[in-house]
Amino acid sequence: MAGEAPALLSAAEAARRIREGLLSSAELVESCLEQISAFEEKVQAWVFLDAEHARKQARAADEKKASGEAIGPLHGIPVGVKDIIDTSDMPTENGTVLHKGRTPRRDAAVVSMLRAAGAVILGKTVTTECAYFHPGKTRNPHNPAHTPGGSSSGSAAAVAAAMVPLALGSQTNGSVIRPAAFCGVYGFKPTHGLIPRTGILRLSRTLDHVGAFARSLDDLALLAEQLVGWDEGDPDTRPRARVPFREVLAEEPPVPPMLAFIRTPHWERVDADAKDAFKELQEALGDRIEEVDLFPSSASAWDMHTIIMETEMAVNLEAEWTKGAKKLSATLRARIERGREARAADYLRALQTIPRIVDSFDDLFMQRYDAILTPAAPGTAPKGLESTGDPAFCSLWTLLGLPAVSLPLMRGENGLPIGVQLVGRRNFDARLLRTARWLAGKLA
Amino acid sequence: MAGEAPALLSAAEAARRIREGLLSSAELVESCLEQISAFEEKVQAWVFLDAEHARKQARAADEKKASGEAIGPLHGIPVGVKDIIDTSDMPTENGTVLHKGRTPRRDAAVVSMLRAAGAVILGKTVTTECAYFHPGKTRNPHNPAHTPGGSSSGSAAAVAAAMVPLALGSQTNGSVIRPAAFCGVYGFKPTHGLIPRTGILRLSRTLDHVGAFARSLDDLALLAEQLVGWDEGDPDTRPRARVPFREVLAEEPPVPPMLAFIRTPHWERVDADAKDAFKELQEALGDRIEEVDLFPSSASAWDMHTIIMETEMAVNLEAEWTKGAKKLSATLRARIERGREARAADYLRALQTIPRIVDSFDDLFMQRYDAILTPAAPGTAPKGLESTGDPAFCSLWTLLGLPAVSLPLMRGENGLPIGVQLVGRRNFDARLLRTARWLAGKLA
Repeated sequence: MAGEAPALLSAAEAARRIREGLLSSAELVESCLEQISAFEEKVQAWVFLDAEHARKQARAADEKKASGEAIGPLHGIPVGVKDIIDTSDMPTENGTVLHKGRTPRRDAAVVSMLRAAGAVILGKTVTTECAYFHPGKTRNPHNPAHTPGGSSSGSAAAVAAAMVPLALGSQTNGSVIRPAAFCGVYGFKPTHGLIPRTGILRLSRTLDHVGAFARSLDDLALLAEQLVGWDEGDPDTRPRARVPFREVLAEEPPVPPMLAFIRTPHWERVDADAKDAFKELQEALGDRIEEVDLFPSSASAWDMHTIIMETEMAVNLEAEWTKGAKKLSATLRARIERGREARAADYLRALQTIPRIVDSFDDLFMQRYDAILTPAAPGTAPKGLESTGDPAFCSLWTLLGLPAVSLPLMRGENGLPIGVQLVGRRNFDARLLRTARWLAGKLA
Repeated sequence: MAGEAPALLSAAEAARRIREGLLSSAELVESCLEQISAFEEKVQAWVFLDAEHARKQARAADEKKASGEAIGPLHGIPVGVKDIIDTSDMPTENGTVLHKGRTPRRDAAVVSMLRAAGAVILGKTVTTECAYFHPGKTRNPHNPAHTPGGSSSGSAAAVAAAMVPLALGSQTNGSVIRPAAFCGVYGFKPTHGLIPRTGILRLSRTLDHVGAFARSLDDLALLAEQLVGWDEGDPDTRPRARVPFREVLAEEPPVPPMLAFIRTPHWERVDADAKDAFKELQEALGDRIEEVDLFPSSASAWDMHTIIMETEMAVNLEAEWTKGAKKLSATLRARIERGREARAADYLRALQTIPRIVDSFDDLFMQRYDAILTPAAPGTAPKGLESTGDPAFCSLWTLLGLPAVSLPLMRGENGLPIGVQLVGRRNFDARLLRTARWLAGKLA
């Protein structure tokens, strides 16, 4: 262990050492706090962090371990939590001054699940305003002149800067996959309804997903495994068996996976260096990847995503609108205004079309492909902090609720990471991670 | 058995006699066909009836019985099916010339369930245009100058005229409870999602319910028991245990039920003679009934029902609109036009409010009341055939998906039936019928 700061360990490795008595949670948390001291001024990933409270949780974890009590899979592991996810012991301000000082009484379902697994909730990470586009203060750890992406800006950046091995985010359009790609970490948005959203700022029941950030697929699997479950507060969750993420990830695929390369109608927006990188990747994969055109029925998906998101946001943020529309950003206000005027028939038509497109993709997956390969974003993180970048390569998969993962497998000309997005079949989340590991191994 | 035409028997009694070999399905069906010959010219309940096809089904039922094979609870019993419910062996025209000659390839889920229980599908009963307001040809069997109510006009009238002991209908606003009340039969609209709607003209996923007509509570229970089930084509159904309607109905309530008399904001529309009848009923029930005011949150329920119905109809009838808007009635066109212009935020706000109002009623039921007693309609069937009457006393319960039953317990000054509506707690359907039997016994 000598030489390597515990903060640089993977969550799985740190959890193993804690379990075996080779590392204490206090040491791990202290190491994470040191990383934060060293890099927070540059990265600005955190909106709330009480070092003493974190140390207290770590000591409690170490005492529990010492007492011989049974411990969970994340025992003593610090996790960063996006500040739209309620915590009973820390403020949750949803990235808007309208919720300044808001202190929820209850943990979100996912926070309860993390605590039950033994995690230390290290602090709250920066979100854009109401998890929409208007940026927070966070910068890209690879180059602070560039955006970290959003809306889960702080979670992606904190994991990338090794301030914390794991973090939670959320995605309603591209808010997990895009910042993961821009910050060069692994990001995972499981199937819609797999992870309960109770106690999380609701933008859109149809589109909101909880997501996860880590620096390896193993860690994503470890984290995701703790979060699956039914919660009566989230009508889109279902009672279901635990998903054996780690077990499936540890398996070899029975046959070499076949990938469908889908450029989407937005390919022309992709930067030249990213296009080259994808071309090389295609060549490296040889006969294991084929180009597939989107079905005609998918062409309207982006418009469908827009009307659903605008409409549901307009209703779900109505209290904020009434209380202080002027304190919302112009971007968000404009979106809500459009949502308030949208026609119900258009909205409902969009909702009713989703299952039909999902069926088409089901056919694609059943007939030939293990996963879809597509960009996570149009390229590396754009320069400047006034925008969090373009979510267009995520909207379709979010709309359909398909599981997606971003892998930091390539780099642009500027040296910044480029994310490769893999998309899987609905409810085949563990298998998607297994395919992702195969892909990463293939390119290593 | 001498003297009584089999068509006049209850379904339960006829089924018993068939099971015991005292009556054949052929005799029963022939008796129903005789009733139809005698009264159809006056009542006009049927839009499709092939006597030979009905006789063939009856003969097949009798042969199966004779072979010693196991038979179902409705073996040999004729049932009328509203003409918005698909049948693979008869046209289903949905009450619109746009669907003239339409012959579905598959039975609706409920028709399959009836056939599995041994029923004879006697024919298709008249519906208003697309199960909305524009009347069909049916008249009230008690007085052909009066409306039978709608939209399940033919089913209610056919059961009232003893053309068939059982019939299926549907309700999106008041289309089962109102015609049952006007025709003086029992009508039952179970909890939303209890009976699958696959293969039935869809107006509104949120509001559409399958309903049942019979001349006794026993028969309603017998019919409803065959129809409960999960169907993957109806996303609002759930896998669940069979509901023991007949067993629960046969029990005595453990304590005398307590009823909540809710006048609703539309009480002023109730006819003077109906008001008197309800006053007498209240007096007869003494301390077993209390007046309860609607919660303030329910006041907007009628507007919510309107926007949900208009919006969902506009989308669900889009093919008809495109194909031949001019062939739709002016009433339906106007409604669709409004639905096409409705705002998504208003629609969604209405949808999101439903569970909160349901919760309030849950409290009411848990704290004190076994059922709500309220009018089924503003009075007896109105004179004239140009309207099917006022559904205002049904809209709230349809919106909330609560189970409702109409009981033909009173009469107006003109001698026509007045329906008493009992409304129960969601998913407590069998208990509602038990309370209804207690009420009927109390007033007998």
